[in-house]
Amino acid sequence: MKILFVAGDPKPERWTVPIKELLPEAKVYVWDPEGPAVDADYAIVWQPPEALFEREKHLKAVFNLGAGIDGLLKVANLPEALTVVRLEDAGMSVQMAEYVLHQLLEASREMETYREQQRQGVWKIHRPIKRSEWPVGVMGLGHIGKRVASTLANLDYRVSGWARGEHSLEGVSTYAGPDELGDFLKATRVLVNTLPLTDNTRNIIDYELLSQLQPGAVLINVGRGEHLVEDDLLRALDDGTLLRASLDVFRKEPLPEGHPFWQRKEITITPHISARTLRDATIEQITGKIRDHAQGLAITGIVDTERGY
Amino acid sequence: MKILFVAGDPKPERWTVPIKELLPEAKVYVWDPEGPAVDADYAIVWQPPEALFEREKHLKAVFNLGAGIDGLLKVANLPEALTVVRLEDAGMSVQMAEYVLHQLLEASREMETYREQQRQGVWKIHRPIKRSEWPVGVMGLGHIGKRVASTLANLDYRVSGWARGEHSLEGVSTYAGPDELGDFLKATRVLVNTLPLTDNTRNIIDYELLSQLQPGAVLINVGRGEHLVEDDLLRALDDGTLLRASLDVFRKEPLPEGHPFWQRKEITITPHISARTLRDATIEQITGKIRDHAQGLAITGIVDTERGY
Repeated sequence: MKILFVAGDPKPERWTVPIKELLPEAKVYVWDPEGPAVDADYAIVWQPPEALFEREKHLKAVFNLGAGIDGLLKVANLPEALTVVRLEDAGMSVQMAEYVLHQLLEASREMETYREQQRQGVWKIHRPIKRSEWPVGVMGLGHIGKRVASTLANLDYRVSGWARGEHSLEGVSTYAGPDELGDFLKATRVLVNTLPLTDNTRNIIDYELLSQLQPGAVLINVGRGEHLVEDDLLRALDDGTLLRASLDVFRKEPLPEGHPFWQRKEITITPHISARTLRDATIEQITGKIRDHAQGLAITGIVDTERGY
Repeated sequence: MKILFVAGDPKPERWTVPIKELLPEAKVYVWDPEGPAVDADYAIVWQPPEALFEREKHLKAVFNLGAGIDGLLKVANLPEALTVVRLEDAGMSVQMAEYVLHQLLEASREMETYREQQRQGVWKIHRPIKRSEWPVGVMGLGHIGKRVASTLANLDYRVSGWARGEHSLEGVSTYAGPDELGDFLKATRVLVNTLPLTDNTRNIIDYELLSQLQPGAVLINVGRGEHLVEDDLLRALDDGTLLRASLDVFRKEPLPEGHPFWQRKEITITPHISARTLRDATIEQITGKIRDHAQGLAITGIVDTERGY
């Protein structure tokens, strides 16, 4: 079995060595832009070049090094019939859950105000939070959205969840499809986006959507930058529709120098770190799936490329 | 039945009105330093004056408006045989749990570094957290400590708990008594203090204790300021024994102007807000207990004043 590793890690041996250890029967290659075809059975990829699919004609599956496969689907010559497998969790959902909670507290418990007070040497107690005043709505109910929603529900927040299809989750009110989006937004003050990026969800967070949230609304975007219409966000902050936004993802990453988001006090920017792919967990998951797939067993995480997730 | 409300709230009617609603059979009085005795059956108190116990001689129980009763036990003429009831949870444990998680992420996920980068317009990704590198130890396993420990365990942290007596808690390794304190500290990098303040726990967090934690240790103190030897904290920060401290409680509150803690970058100061008494939940709990006690039913939360909690 031949496995080809196609990701821009400057130290690819951090991946290939443990992959060989876990799959001793495999030959593991690192993508060489200049090199010949290796006739790989499986490719492990992150934003691969078109050359991959020009050169490797017998791939049985590609494994994407992330949960969102929008970057892979952008590759123009991705073969239609190719099996695409996305990363499932691999330590990401719990990181997103804690990141979201951290950002929620920045808003609900005024943590920046307390930090500013410390810098000034001021001891001043603000009004305590009432959980009932901070209902949370999670868009997207995949592995990540569910973990975020459950974590907040376990901390006694009122949590709603919205997704394209029907879902059921303990302690969370769920809404499905475009028809129920309005009710979901009306029930939400803190909007958390964990949606996959598809043609249906691109630009979904626009002014019209934000204006349906409860007063003093907060946006936490851990999905993709292209879910959000950037000018609409600024407008919503300017006119008070939105109180704060925590953004971990952007239409263009790194966020360009001079972009208006950088200097807005109501925006918290993090450089796409809300959930990191954990190498060990990722390698374990992918090698396990490669072994199963090679033996003809069913594997989870196969993407409906038409649907986009 | 007569209930006397003895706390420094400038708007005591925020308490007395709902108390009357929930206990229509009761007469509810607000403490008047100049006033006569009202011959109260029950007192609801926060740091009451000695005059209370001089004047009111027929109290059947006092209800403390907080979980920690160290302030009440300081009142010199508190009658030894008086039933003292502390607040149990009333929305506090979940607030502490989220506060602790927030402060843990400030350390483990370098949130201040990312905020500083934003101020500078810098996009730079730091090493991802490995949960295995941030084992948490919770001192005190009452309502609050247990909730803190479970919340972190549910977020896949390795969590230990230490208390005077034996406890058992799913997903948490528990240690009991002075003999097992050393093993608990050795297993801990992030030390969270939720202990009650007693003669046994005063000054428990000293240099010797801190130096037994794992390298790059973090202290989160949501217990009482008097648990912590302040000079020892500064020494541990100075020599690198401790990486950071998040302090919500202090020996003297408000923390005095000019106190060395204010200006330390490795210390996060919040003005005793990690968990706030929520009026509604508190009133509901106390009035329920008063009703039960008056009917001769058993109630929970009665303090062993000898033990101190």
